[in-house]
Amino acid sequence: MSLARDKANSRISSLKSLLCVGLDSDPDKIPAPFSGYENPVFEFNRTVIRATSDVAAAYKINTAFYEARGVPGLQDMEKTLGVIPEAIMTIADAKRADIGNTSRKYAQAFFDHWSFDAVTVAPYMGFDSLEPFFAYEDKLVFVLCLTSNEGSADFEEQLMLDGTPLYRSVLGKVSSWSRSENGGVVVGATKSSQLGEIRRQAPGLFFLMPGVGAQGGSLDEAVDLGVDTDRQSALINVSRALIYPEAPASGSFLSIDDYERAVAEEAKKIHDAMRRVL
Amino acid sequence: MSLARDKANSRISSLKSLLCVGLDSDPDKIPAPFSGYENPVFEFNRTVIRATSDVAAAYKINTAFYEARGVPGLQDMEKTLGVIPEAIMTIADAKRADIGNTSRKYAQAFFDHWSFDAVTVAPYMGFDSLEPFFAYEDKLVFVLCLTSNEGSADFEEQLMLDGTPLYRSVLGKVSSWSRSENGGVVVGATKSSQLGEIRRQAPGLFFLMPGVGAQGGSLDEAVDLGVDTDRQSALINVSRALIYPEAPASGSFLSIDDYERAVAEEAKKIHDAMRRVL
Repeated sequence: MSLARDKANSRISSLKSLLCVGLDSDPDKIPAPFSGYENPVFEFNRTVIRATSDVAAAYKINTAFYEARGVPGLQDMEKTLGVIPEAIMTIADAKRADIGNTSRKYAQAFFDHWSFDAVTVAPYMGFDSLEPFFAYEDKLVFVLCLTSNEGSADFEEQLMLDGTPLYRSVLGKVSSWSRSENGGVVVGATKSSQLGEIRRQAPGLFFLMPGVGAQGGSLDEAVDLGVDTDRQSALINVSRALIYPEAPASGSFLSIDDYERAVAEEAKKIHDAMRRVL
Repeated sequence: MSLARDKANSRISSLKSLLCVGLDSDPDKIPAPFSGYENPVFEFNRTVIRATSDVAAAYKINTAFYEARGVPGLQDMEKTLGVIPEAIMTIADAKRADIGNTSRKYAQAFFDHWSFDAVTVAPYMGFDSLEPFFAYEDKLVFVLCLTSNEGSADFEEQLMLDGTPLYRSVLGKVSSWSRSENGGVVVGATKSSQLGEIRRQAPGLFFLMPGVGAQGGSLDEAVDLGVDTDRQSALINVSRALIYPEAPASGSFLSIDDYERAVAEEAKKIHDAMRRVL
């Protein structure tokens, strides 16, 4: 039994929230009131977490945004992990995978060293590149399936000889490769026409659905189509639309409190929409 | 014109060497004489670089082995980059890729922040996930094509509706997506039966071929089949078989000098084999 799955599902059930808050924290987009701090990105993250922790089912850290600044960026990631409440699932959105001995090191990095509850991985290299992640039975492993971007048409939706698209082939294999209910897939919320069918083909997998907000996916459809029969085992990620809310009419946030209120309000709106559908 | 490509090719031509030294430096495998140092991994890397820099055409840093230890690991990676001679190409074996705004951050990390000459990326998410890397016209971008591991059978070698395997579809698209000669592919040296055909289909791409040594690929075939018509634009990566040479009959290396000599000898053997075929 995957402890990470239980942790996420118990929070999803009790809050009636599938909200995954995406910490794609970009120094160039952080509001002015944070600029006085020694670590603006960490202060920004701490504020987002404070503003959303009553309705968040998970926090997703997009590793690219931290790696882009090298060691100081990774130090901010480490400090951020330290202020996420224990009851809330943490996801490393890392999209890693390599040959077995190397994937083992990535799994060590995200699960042992950083203690994330879950990680996203890429399927291209096949079973032995994912097995080292699935070996952590108490964690959750989200394999890229049908992603939210335009480029999903290039390979993911290409048809195989058996007439099914590549992403369906990935979906089938992930179902058979995952252990002890620790398997999941990434399916873009922008793909609402395929979402229901994907969920029916993989009733036992955990779904991570990015693409709501800046990328244009429908929140209602993602909530309705992405959950399992118990109305759980699914997370809907919102990043930019939540952590960079519209500034007030004056043009910019005057204080951290102003910004925190705007994020809390946006999170509440998303939560309300989720509760309506759930 | 890709400066990184020129840098690699001018060294390949002058040394008659395709050797890419893979710094998959694992604290658990580092010989005893390094254990007295404050940063055993960095001292180990520095020694490998000293022992091989006269015959190496490139150094490849496998990011997983550094990330596994968190911030101290990344600090070792940074220090290692600082002691690689300027004339020798550096490759971040990172296998990243994500939606466009996130891939841009990964490209910033590896090209701007760490100043690598090249990076490996994963194709699953399609064009817009790779374009931010190709936008760096002076760098080299190696896209996973047909990898050296067993799992390559799971998706890469699956047949598409047009009767060609997925990896050939990736190969064709990479050729059209790369800019200013900055495109490359990763093709496992274990795949000698497909290597010649892949090279003929993509005469203009740079080839990175892992899998010689511990993974069982043939050095001679990789040298002979992987180069372009000018007998260059190809690198053969050797990691474990080179950086963990067999210990002397006594059972272990007694000093760093002992270890350095063993690595230099192994590198010379590989270089000699390459010169014979080139």
